[in-house]
Amino acid sequence: MAKEYFPLSDVYGLLESGPVVLITTFNKSHPNIMTQSWHTMMEFEPPLVGCVISDQNYSFSLLMENKECVINIPAVELAEKVVGCGNMSGATVNKFERFCLTPMPATMVRAPLIDECFANLECIVVDTRMVNCYCFFVVEVINAWIDPAVKNLRTIHHLGRGNFMVAGEHIKFQSTMK
Amino acid sequence: MAKEYFPLSDVYGLLESGPVVLITTFNKSHPNIMTQSWHTMMEFEPPLVGCVISDQNYSFSLLMENKECVINIPAVELAEKVVGCGNMSGATVNKFERFCLTPMPATMVRAPLIDECFANLECIVVDTRMVNCYCFFVVEVINAWIDPAVKNLRTIHHLGRGNFMVAGEHIKFQSTMK
Repeated sequence: MAKEYFPLSDVYGLLESGPVVLITTFNKSHPNIMTQSWHTMMEFEPPLVGCVISDQNYSFSLLMENKECVINIPAVELAEKVVGCGNMSGATVNKFERFCLTPMPATMVRAPLIDECFANLECIVVDTRMVNCYCFFVVEVINAWIDPAVKNLRTIHHLGRGNFMVAGEHIKFQSTMK
Repeated sequence: MAKEYFPLSDVYGLLESGPVVLITTFNKSHPNIMTQSWHTMMEFEPPLVGCVISDQNYSFSLLMENKECVINIPAVELAEKVVGCGNMSGATVNKFERFCLTPMPATMVRAPLIDECFANLECIVVDTRMVNCYCFFVVEVINAWIDPAVKNLRTIHHLGRGNFMVAGEHIKFQSTMK
């Protein structure tokens, strides 16, 4: 998928609607993928994102060790793979192989981009003070990619227990909100 | 709107899809309303929610002073009022009057419920350690209400600069995810 740079100042628009994301982390033997919905924007620019990664997840130790990840945003076409990645641990499975997803090298971090996702945000961990209490990592987006062909972002949004809603119609208002 | 108790263990399903919410705070003269999208679930039960409330917002000082709020979830029918609430400060305007919204007493906090919202989460602030750095409050949901008549949650999700997407079709997968 041919992607282009995406302005860091616009990254919030990709995340604040609450899409399910796939977070990739680096590992010498095989990189991991984690399905994740507990994230929030924390600053516009540089874009800061807060993410809960449970210490029960294999990604937790990889993130603690390497302090970097990629937040990949899938569209609805990947929904089954997204759920599949959420249903098993990467400790014993190479999820890229298992779900036929394509790892592509990032430019600023060792964790790979997932080629099939329409947007990829390369991130470094900048604050671990809330990890002990809440498994809450603050990451900074240092490079962002988007598929320029994507017009309507058909993201998926978890409603609990395997139920998702798909992004629907778009509406626009006069707004002074950023 | 006749509402019923909503189980605290299911609250995550209301928030993790990333809806725009209206956060109400207590004030002796008039309660305030703030339009907000930067929130994330942090724990299932008791439900913990992390929220960024900028210190440029009037709600910041009310939240710091009273350590309580209500997270109200509007459906698409309220979209214009939601945007209106986001376009002005409550320091000089009573937004309930300005936008013809109905304050209803909560049971556990002094901040009011917005009657027109299909769900209302009564919250107390439980952690302010990240307020200095990120204006990030951790709140605990201590009581939750829902309109039992609502079946499809037609929430709205901010895409930046007044653009929103409306919750679309629902899909379901076999999932071991909570």
